[in-house]
Amino acid sequence: MFKDVDLVLVGHGSVLPYNEELMETFRRKIERRRLFRSVRIAFLQRSKPSLEEVLEELAATSPGRKVLVLPVFLAKGTHTLKDIPEILESYGENLKIIYGEPLGADDRIVDVLIDRAKATLMAAADGET
Amino acid sequence: MFKDVDLVLVGHGSVLPYNEELMETFRRKIERRRLFRSVRIAFLQRSKPSLEEVLEELAATSPGRKVLVLPVFLAKGTHTLKDIPEILESYGENLKIIYGEPLGADDRIVDVLIDRAKATLMAAADGET
Repeated sequence: MFKDVDLVLVGHGSVLPYNEELMETFRRKIERRRLFRSVRIAFLQRSKPSLEEVLEELAATSPGRKVLVLPVFLAKGTHTLKDIPEILESYGENLKIIYGEPLGADDRIVDVLIDRAKATLMAAADGET
Repeated sequence: MFKDVDLVLVGHGSVLPYNEELMETFRRKIERRRLFRSVRIAFLQRSKPSLEEVLEELAATSPGRKVLVLPVFLAKGTHTLKDIPEILESYGENLKIIYGEPLGADDRIVDVLIDRAKATLMAAADGET
């Protein structure tokens, strides 16, 4: 469907492994849908590869191609409005960068929150009996 | 369904208003389902009220009650494994605190990511024509 687009999912990054694991799971699940030319992950802080590293590699191997950079953040904030755009500016000459929006207040995320709440309370109730 | 439980959604907090707006939207949408005694939001950093403030208020007005603290974070990390549990420890005597898990790699979040990607690419294509 978007076979001319390389997708880069950008996560926050962490000293712990969980953010990387989550991002890799998202990457794999999106890759399986075969919508994009490629699906990569990149991070702002601590975790590797950095967003700069991924964009440099794409600029070197696929100059001039369309790259969709999607922030894997819940809300807009300093990271999505300032940090990521500042990095993207440096690569505009060699790649056609398109920048997306964070997840936002989608009802499907509300459903996930309610499922997490229910599961936690069910487990706590089991522990009491 | 869980009418004996006060739900506290804990967000990261931000100097910008978007994290608060997102959390308030989640709060309102969950409140509408009428599953919990009450639904509140609280923050770790910068935004108000803080998690401490919300737990103090609950301990004062509803001592001994069940409080489900749900981290509104994508992945486990320092905030969910260290910062929040350290705060919760101080309120264990006055409230029955139950602590939940972050959102994680749910397929519904993958669907939201793909929708964000498609919408961004459609808008970019419209801009080109």
